[in-house]
Amino acid sequence: MDLKRLSRQIEFLVEIDRLKTIVRRTLLVDGSRQEDSAEHSWHLALLAMVLAEHSNSPVDLFRVLKMILVHDIVEIDAGDTYCYDEEANRGKAEREKKAADRIFGLLPEDQEIEFRSLWEEFESRQTEDALFAAALDRLQPILNAFRSGGITWQKHGIRGEQIFRKNSHMGDGSQVLWDYAQGMIKDAIAKGWIAQ
Amino acid sequence: MDLKRLSRQIEFLVEIDRLKTIVRRTLLVDGSRQEDSAEHSWHLALLAMVLAEHSNSPVDLFRVLKMILVHDIVEIDAGDTYCYDEEANRGKAEREKKAADRIFGLLPEDQEIEFRSLWEEFESRQTEDALFAAALDRLQPILNAFRSGGITWQKHGIRGEQIFRKNSHMGDGSQVLWDYAQGMIKDAIAKGWIAQ
Repeated sequence: MDLKRLSRQIEFLVEIDRLKTIVRRTLLVDGSRQEDSAEHSWHLALLAMVLAEHSNSPVDLFRVLKMILVHDIVEIDAGDTYCYDEEANRGKAEREKKAADRIFGLLPEDQEIEFRSLWEEFESRQTEDALFAAALDRLQPILNAFRSGGITWQKHGIRGEQIFRKNSHMGDGSQVLWDYAQGMIKDAIAKGWIAQ
Repeated sequence: MDLKRLSRQIEFLVEIDRLKTIVRRTLLVDGSRQEDSAEHSWHLALLAMVLAEHSNSPVDLFRVLKMILVHDIVEIDAGDTYCYDEEANRGKAEREKKAADRIFGLLPEDQEIEFRSLWEEFESRQTEDALFAAALDRLQPILNAFRSGGITWQKHGIRGEQIFRKNSHMGDGSQVLWDYAQGMIKDAIAKGWIAQ
């Protein structure tokens, strides 16, 4: 038993507990509070398990799940960046790269390489698995915002046009889910929750 | 596109958002608050990804991840049952069975069968995958309780002897991790955080 290896693994697992303290803009469906990035990651993983059949191309669900489970860990240092906040999105890549160096660097080297490569694949959106994972990462906040009455969008003054524009890459991963999401956005406009 | 099928899938995914409101006894490592069952499930999934090599027998990590991701969904109706609460544990199996009927029953039938079978496998602890998943489900609360200073145990008057007894099945999934956990329990006793 390599105790030094186990000890590095445990320190990583203790450190990532902090993802539970990273608060996102998205509300829970019951509107009671904002969700955190650990809960969000779990919810996305369930979306993947249930909705995999709607990917444009067949995906390797095992890889999609692993990508989703690690995709937000960098937020422990870099914070959550609201997709509609143009200013905050400018420094995002650099902040997250530094975070990946530090946090994945806690792991034994072979696992550091594996985790970092899963995160980079997710961010790059070049593979079918990553395109589908990224589509779910856009669907979930729209679903939660819509089902909690559009309050998140109203609070941040988000217009329908911005939601369409910022999330259209969802169609690269799943046209079916992007069609479904567009239905929610149109409905939110029709209900008068948000401006066009 | 089968819209009725997609609609059932979405209703399930909206319903399980409520797992984020199920509060567990376990504190976050920083001690700031109790964790919820959605965060806990995400954390366990990461434990599985990092610690799979320590299982007594080789596991199918894909199946372990899926089991972990669904294992607590029944708590939406049945509530979280503290493992040291003998009274609450008596009605647990029946409460959770009813919850599984209702919640997994929201899914299309093929997925209801798949999800229910993953949950039943986890609960039964008869396969190597389930034994390892269950070991992680015992390790994580001990790790968090220990790293947040033993406050959870103190608050509920838990003694070392109870922790050893209630968690010994961890050794059926991973002797390495059970040895590591026993080290934490002994350390908590030595520090005077808990009674023997």
